Amino acid sequence: MNVTVRGRTQHFRTVTFDRAQNAVRLIEQRLLPHEFKIVATQNFRATAAAITDMIVRGAGAIGATAAYGLAQGALAFRGHDLKTFSAHVGTVYQVLKNARPTAVDPVNAMNDVHAAMRTGATVAEQQSLALAAAEEFAREDVRHCEAIGRHGAKLIRNGMKILTHCNAGWLAFVDIGTATAPIYAAEAQGKKFHVFCDETRPRSQGATLTAWELAQQKISHQIIADNAAGHLMQRGEIDLVIVGSDRTLGRTGEVANKIGTYTKAVLAARHKIPFYVAIPLSTIDWDLNRGLDIPIEERHEHEVLGAWGVVANPKSEIRNPKLIRREYVRVANPTSGARNPGFDVTPAELITSIITPEGIFKPKELWRHRRELGFGG
Amino acid sequence: MNVTVRGRTQHFRTVTFDRAQNAVRLIEQRLLPHEFKIVATQNFRATAAAITDMIVRGAGAIGATAAYGLAQGALAFRGHDLKTFSAHVGTVYQVLKNARPTAVDPVNAMNDVHAAMRTGATVAEQQSLALAAAEEFAREDVRHCEAIGRHGAKLIRNGMKILTHCNAGWLAFVDIGTATAPIYAAEAQGKKFHVFCDETRPRSQGATLTAWELAQQKISHQIIADNAAGHLMQRGEIDLVIVGSDRTLGRTGEVANKIGTYTKAVLAARHKIPFYVAIPLSTIDWDLNRGLDIPIEERHEHEVLGAWGVVANPKSEIRNPKLIRREYVRVANPTSGARNPGFDVTPAELITSIITPEGIFKPKELWRHRRELGFGG
Repeated sequence: MNVTVRGRTQHFRTVTFDRAQNAVRLIEQRLLPHEFKIVATQNFRATAAAITDMIVRGAGAIGATAAYGLAQGALAFRGHDLKTFSAHVGTVYQVLKNARPTAVDPVNAMNDVHAAMRTGATVAEQQSLALAAAEEFAREDVRHCEAIGRHGAKLIRNGMKILTHCNAGWLAFVDIGTATAPIYAAEAQGKKFHVFCDETRPRSQGATLTAWELAQQKISHQIIADNAAGHLMQRGEIDLVIVGSDRTLGRTGEVANKIGTYTKAVLAARHKIPFYVAIPLSTIDWDLNRGLDIPIEERHEHEVLGAWGVVANPKSEIRNPKLIRREYVRVANPTSGARNPGFDVTPAELITSIITPEGIFKPKELWRHRRELGFGG
Repeated sequence: MNVTVRGRTQHFRTVTFDRAQNAVRLIEQRLLPHEFKIVATQNFRATAAAITDMIVRGAGAIGATAAYGLAQGALAFRGHDLKTFSAHVGTVYQVLKNARPTAVDPVNAMNDVHAAMRTGATVAEQQSLALAAAEEFAREDVRHCEAIGRHGAKLIRNGMKILTHCNAGWLAFVDIGTATAPIYAAEAQGKKFHVFCDETRPRSQGATLTAWELAQQKISHQIIADNAAGHLMQRGEIDLVIVGSDRTLGRTGEVANKIGTYTKAVLAARHKIPFYVAIPLSTIDWDLNRGLDIPIEERHEHEVLGAWGVVANPKSEIRNPKLIRREYVRVANPTSGARNPGFDVTPAELITSIITPEGIFKPKELWRHRRELGFGG
């Protein structure tokens, strides 16, 4: 998507591969929204570290990073002995897998690359197949997000006010994103609308990443406190809600997503506002029978007890403030602790429809459409 | 209530009067929760400035501060001419009224004091009556909060988990508070329970003031992101919600309170969790016919776009961190703006009951009980 750097607007993807340098190029997401910078990882260990250190985050983005990292590691091999090469590739795979042990996307992505490269007869052939497969993984991620945008854009009409929660934007994928895909597609069709970004405490991904994306794309938007959406709905100021999903139960249509999603779904149902979830196929879990069994990560309390930001000169403007330095500030009472569940589960009854690359489905219809939604492969 | 300063626990009130010094003594609330300090205003202009500058905030607390400020100004008068004295008192009244022009509590409190003092025949008598009336105003504020506690404590059973939003605690009144009154009363009765404090973005009064109050009182509590209550309710971890009110419509039972209150009421109704509002009589509006007509203050966007906190040494403990300095940090994307409604309105149907100093009433019953609830008086 678009990023304007020093007055010049360019197109960027979250993850790309530099063949000449054998490097993975990543947007340094830890600096956003206050600074935009591309980093190039010079070898597969640096690529793994970029995943571990959250330079790159988001399901599709870390999947593509791991796929490119496996190709990068394979391409760095010098020699012709397939057995030594395979052992080397096994090490690369393991290092990248360990970069974020609980994530499924890097493993699925690397398995694709691994399966493709093993059809090659020589080291050179396998190296070339690995890169081709990684590129195809990234292209497919983009195609899926484009398809979500194509289907979802039909839901957005001129003059609508749209609420989003957290960031399921292009920064979380190779490009375009999922919850943001209908927004970008509708904007490309010339539709005019306004987006409210839930701040999304405690990590504030809505106020930082989603707002940054929308500002770069010059889409009309405002940030709101997570507390404000109910009031805006009550006063008729929200027409549509679109969120992403971390895990979608294919058997029940329940959706696990960032903490606070469930609250917005309850409010939307009360106000008869359509509530949509945009998902890549990779988040569908075809095994679990009930949302209550989804483990909810309890995250560190310091996220709730404070905030990360940039100390701004109080004399400078609130828009485009003069930024001084990034800090963690303790907001809360210093002798109090916190509970910090990272996700919640929204039941199917509160979800109007689920927007997938294969079309828009009622949550309870996912199972009936499981073959076209990739069940079993 | 209790405050522990350098290991020694003492009893404090938010607002008291020092006769010897003719000074109003206030807890410097802008330093909380990171520092506890009492300031004494040396004259009525300093008292007015303390209201304007938010050294003191909260309905009951600013009411008592203005009442004491009027007495303080009257007592500072030297002379015996009643006419000159009355003109002086008129100036004092006006200065204190202008300290926070939109607040009704200072005006109501000063009118009480003014009415009482005018029965005096001499300057000295009027001065003495002014102070007595101010002291009575403060005592009545405390008695009302005690009564709310007495009624509300019956609702709290051993082992309960209670959710609160924002701060309607003793810092907002002379002592005890309203939403916190049942909590403190139940604790004094030896009941054991746990309180979840909603952070209450954007100004974080739950994470700062309510959590500080509960920590000082040694009541089991944890702060949660405003996004987390829905999930905790879904998992059966909240048994009761108690909040305060900025304005309660006596004719309809609707409650205007800090932004996010409505959301918690909607969630509580879905989960069949009792939702109580504790109110002082002074917040009841007997005139308005519908909540939609309550003007909702749109506050400055910088509250949503950032956070106030104390830069903490990241190496130090999260509990009792080594505090370095207080700052405003910009959290959000620097080129984005915000919407910031300060309050929302909760309809009567979502409120289980309203806890008043005169007893507990269904929201729709307020009008029937209007005489005992002070209507017309």
